[in-house]
Amino acid sequence: MYRAPVSEISHTLKHTVDFSAAMEKGRFGEEVSEDLVDAILDEAARFANEEMTPLGPNGDRDGVSVKDGTVTTAEGWADLYRRWIEGGWNAITGPEDFGGQGLPMALGLAVAEMWNSASVAFSLCPTLTMGAVEALEAHGTDELKAIYLEKLVSGEWTGTMNLTEPQAGSDLAALKAKAEPAGDGTYRIFGQKIYITYGEHDFTDNIVHLVLARLPDAPAGTRGISLFLVPKFIPNEDGTPGTRNDVYCHSVEHKLGIHGSPTCTMIYGDGKFGDEAGAIGWLIGEENRGLNCMFTMMNNARLLVGLEGVAIAEAAYQKALAYAEERRQGKAPGWDGQGMAPIVLHPDVRRNLLTMKALTGAARAICYACGIAIDLSHDPHGVSARGAASGAEGEADDTSKWSARANLLTPIAKAFSTDVGVDVANVGIQVHGGMGYVEETGAARLLRDARIAPIYEGTNGIQAIDLVMRKLPLADGRAVHDYIVELRQIAEKAGQSNTQALGATGERLTRALDDLDEVTTWLQERLQAGEHDIALAGATPYLRQFGLTAGGCYLAKGAMAGSGEGQAALARFFAENVLSETASLKDRVMTGAPSLSAAAEHALVTG
Amino acid sequence: MYRAPVSEISHTLKHTVDFSAAMEKGRFGEEVSEDLVDAILDEAARFANEEMTPLGPNGDRDGVSVKDGTVTTAEGWADLYRRWIEGGWNAITGPEDFGGQGLPMALGLAVAEMWNSASVAFSLCPTLTMGAVEALEAHGTDELKAIYLEKLVSGEWTGTMNLTEPQAGSDLAALKAKAEPAGDGTYRIFGQKIYITYGEHDFTDNIVHLVLARLPDAPAGTRGISLFLVPKFIPNEDGTPGTRNDVYCHSVEHKLGIHGSPTCTMIYGDGKFGDEAGAIGWLIGEENRGLNCMFTMMNNARLLVGLEGVAIAEAAYQKALAYAEERRQGKAPGWDGQGMAPIVLHPDVRRNLLTMKALTGAARAICYACGIAIDLSHDPHGVSARGAASGAEGEADDTSKWSARANLLTPIAKAFSTDVGVDVANVGIQVHGGMGYVEETGAARLLRDARIAPIYEGTNGIQAIDLVMRKLPLADGRAVHDYIVELRQIAEKAGQSNTQALGATGERLTRALDDLDEVTTWLQERLQAGEHDIALAGATPYLRQFGLTAGGCYLAKGAMAGSGEGQAALARFFAENVLSETASLKDRVMTGAPSLSAAAEHALVTG
Repeated sequence: MYRAPVSEISHTLKHTVDFSAAMEKGRFGEEVSEDLVDAILDEAARFANEEMTPLGPNGDRDGVSVKDGTVTTAEGWADLYRRWIEGGWNAITGPEDFGGQGLPMALGLAVAEMWNSASVAFSLCPTLTMGAVEALEAHGTDELKAIYLEKLVSGEWTGTMNLTEPQAGSDLAALKAKAEPAGDGTYRIFGQKIYITYGEHDFTDNIVHLVLARLPDAPAGTRGISLFLVPKFIPNEDGTPGTRNDVYCHSVEHKLGIHGSPTCTMIYGDGKFGDEAGAIGWLIGEENRGLNCMFTMMNNARLLVGLEGVAIAEAAYQKALAYAEERRQGKAPGWDGQGMAPIVLHPDVRRNLLTMKALTGAARAICYACGIAIDLSHDPHGVSARGAASGAEGEADDTSKWSARANLLTPIAKAFSTDVGVDVANVGIQVHGGMGYVEETGAARLLRDARIAPIYEGTNGIQAIDLVMRKLPLADGRAVHDYIVELRQIAEKAGQSNTQALGATGERLTRALDDLDEVTTWLQERLQAGEHDIALAGATPYLRQFGLTAGGCYLAKGAMAGSGEGQAALARFFAENVLSETASLKDRVMTGAPSLSAAAEHALVTG
Repeated sequence: MYRAPVSEISHTLKHTVDFSAAMEKGRFGEEVSEDLVDAILDEAARFANEEMTPLGPNGDRDGVSVKDGTVTTAEGWADLYRRWIEGGWNAITGPEDFGGQGLPMALGLAVAEMWNSASVAFSLCPTLTMGAVEALEAHGTDELKAIYLEKLVSGEWTGTMNLTEPQAGSDLAALKAKAEPAGDGTYRIFGQKIYITYGEHDFTDNIVHLVLARLPDAPAGTRGISLFLVPKFIPNEDGTPGTRNDVYCHSVEHKLGIHGSPTCTMIYGDGKFGDEAGAIGWLIGEENRGLNCMFTMMNNARLLVGLEGVAIAEAAYQKALAYAEERRQGKAPGWDGQGMAPIVLHPDVRRNLLTMKALTGAARAICYACGIAIDLSHDPHGVSARGAASGAEGEADDTSKWSARANLLTPIAKAFSTDVGVDVANVGIQVHGGMGYVEETGAARLLRDARIAPIYEGTNGIQAIDLVMRKLPLADGRAVHDYIVELRQIAEKAGQSNTQALGATGERLTRALDDLDEVTTWLQERLQAGEHDIALAGATPYLRQFGLTAGGCYLAKGAMAGSGEGQAALARFFAENVLSETASLKDRVMTGAPSLSAAAEHALVTG
């Protein structure tokens, strides 16, 4: 059974990604103290361990049922949600003007990791609500904010993101949902959206849909998409849910995992709850600028999806370790106890467990580092440099730097961590042997739940393309090199460290950073030369190379800031057993493209 | 929908692993001709495509139900099984004296790949029967053979392997099932066995269980285990099923995948179908030598499980390719057609598809090569050198060589191929994007079905240990180096080839073979020095290094023997994009052990 790893989470947050240093500089305001952080982590751990974890498997078992557009969630989940929002958990990072606690994103991530370890399927609901809060806060009118924000911040109502249509997945340019101005300031929305997470449920008495659609005169492509707020029930003057809007859940998907989370096909404006005049919606942001508004929420949603990978990996690791300590088979080197040895002592099992733990820790640090960067991209007065055009003038250098850092790290946090989630859950099954294949054990569920994260919020292939095509050029290409320079300081310190337990960590990290530097420059040159196909061919191996290298540095940094031998041993294991993959990835990026393109025409044929 | 890739299977069999050369030398007898092979492959493809593939998903959907010990399989499966055995498919490799066609193992593998692509869950049933045939043929008394073999060869009855008990999985020394001599030449069997594939079903009117159990005076450990034949119904004089024996299916597992295959807990001798005097069994082989007998069937079962990985990978590749050719999203480099490009043209998707296909082809060749080695380990008169003690005198050198080759390749075929099955099915989901996570698509089922293969028939960790500890020392360590020398000939030929399409294949293979040679020798030195813990720590990365290197060589060999540009392009893609992982694996084997053992005590702690 999952137990929130509070000291690891706390150490990673405070020391590996420098939350404490920023806090001491007053970057998070005076209210945020070490005591407050500890209290929040402890209390969240209690809720995750005692209240959420035991109910997690219900979602997998019960799934969701849909009847006449009404969705029923798993046994105990609606009540769990109510207790969870009563605890104030939905509001911790929300804006203070609307009842939120305004705590840093990075702290919110640390807490969200626990919810996601307990149940990703459950936690998706507040993840989506958080996105709606961000989009509304950044782009909504004061009137819309007044009506919706407080309820979304508290979690009394939940939010959704409606992007995908059957023909428009990774390529939103193809979307067809329509919006027509009604003449009274509202719009009428028509269309079908698929894969809408928590598009319908029984947790709350209203649901606020954010919907991408095209206005009649909109330009083709992505510059003709607008964002609308479409509530399930149109709020009355007093804020209570009023008239039912013409939007409903047509069906839910039968999925590999996250069974507890309803994945809905949503129908807008077909007349089931209205007069076929369309679902009523309100514009968010400017007309035809909907994608920009959506990106506000998508960036953070990507990070939160990356965190799902971390969270599942942690849960899978704990489960596998517990099994390996209990299960006894065979004789292990050095085992002199009675009878068979616990399988944790077999070198091959230990390799699996250490790989699981090292990858989990690396991904955690990357996600938290991205969270801190988002926090520091806000100036102390709460204005973010991130949403602004790159190189916007008038922002403090510091916030611009952190904004670029957040943008750089987001695709890595998303893709690297979700791949780690799948890989670690997969190895977790293996550690269990035959028991891992039996659903009762729960190890298989973690793989099933993990498998969606590399797909949604932009597939990991899309993230890799984003990293190469949009993030490497940031700040004229300097943003990424500045980051590598920072990582080099960790490697140098590890190399100079007297901690024998770190082994060859410093040397290994330096070599990996040399490679990363070289490949990064090479890719930037390809982009400048207009050789996009070559750059794109190497995008996925490059992203993993980046993730492994950064992750290895963070593990070493955490170890040097910590006192436990375990941290140093783990950082060393990563450096000496995991990190070597980066050399092979470098080779794929820099020499792989010709055979990739040469093979295009003939090699894929089946026969 | 899966279509058996007949020309690829045929080319791999005939030319990549030299079936044709052996056939022309008359190694398979006069009856085996090119025409016969082609006719069998074509007819098997027809049955797989038209009759088996459409019913495959039923197993996943319906699962199996158990009531009062009676198991009902999926809609249409019992009938499918009857049509399949009526087609003579169960008998193709069976002994001619008992109604089999006595065809080569390698040809049987080629055909079995098709069944497994169509449905692993279905095909497990004959896989297990084949194991029972082999054990009985090699170790059974003439009387037992006369009663059972013909029916098992035809598939009129099926066979099972009963090894695992709750406390005895990888370590069979711990097994507790008991066998007591009844005084009349039979034995009485008591105990519980778990994870018994097709332990009960509705395909046939009798089931023949092969069961490991301990005699009362047996020594402890693996030298005190005997093998027994325990039929569900004791045959009458006329060969029809007679009295019900006291063995039954207590329950079936709720598994991640292969839902169509009943995974049974079997109870022996508890009195449900008898007087508590035990289930009646007959000894196979000598008392206390049961494990040796079981290994006869386990070796080939391991290879067949490896083939499951190949088969699922092939099915996953075909499904992903079909989707990628149809699905359109975004603009791809070089796309000048109307609207969005088929996603197969996006470099990142193409990388995924080529990786899937290249790994599948590599694993296929390794499995077939292992099959050919088994065939050639039989002398032309049908006696196998393989089961005999290593270095047995009186066998032709040639059969001894092939016996060692089969033994060497078996763990690689099993573990590398089943890892490939999981990896390829996993990437297949990714190619489908959101559709991959929805069960209707079928991509997710392939991952669920694939996930068992790295676990059963000896986990892949056990295979790696087997490779390092038992197979590297074969023939005083020469067997493995002789094999590497053979692979070098392929690399040299590729390097000298004028086929531009092969790119740097020769050079890349040579480098990988240099590494494999070096690591192999290094591991052998560790074993000789008694440094078993170091050797064990590197076992898993070494096995993968071996598989990738051998697989890359086979792809190149197949390409040089073939005429299609696609084969050369694929071999090159493997050499230039996949193979580089071997350098990292070498590093893990040779430098990874110290950090693995250093991390033992502290790094695994959770907090």
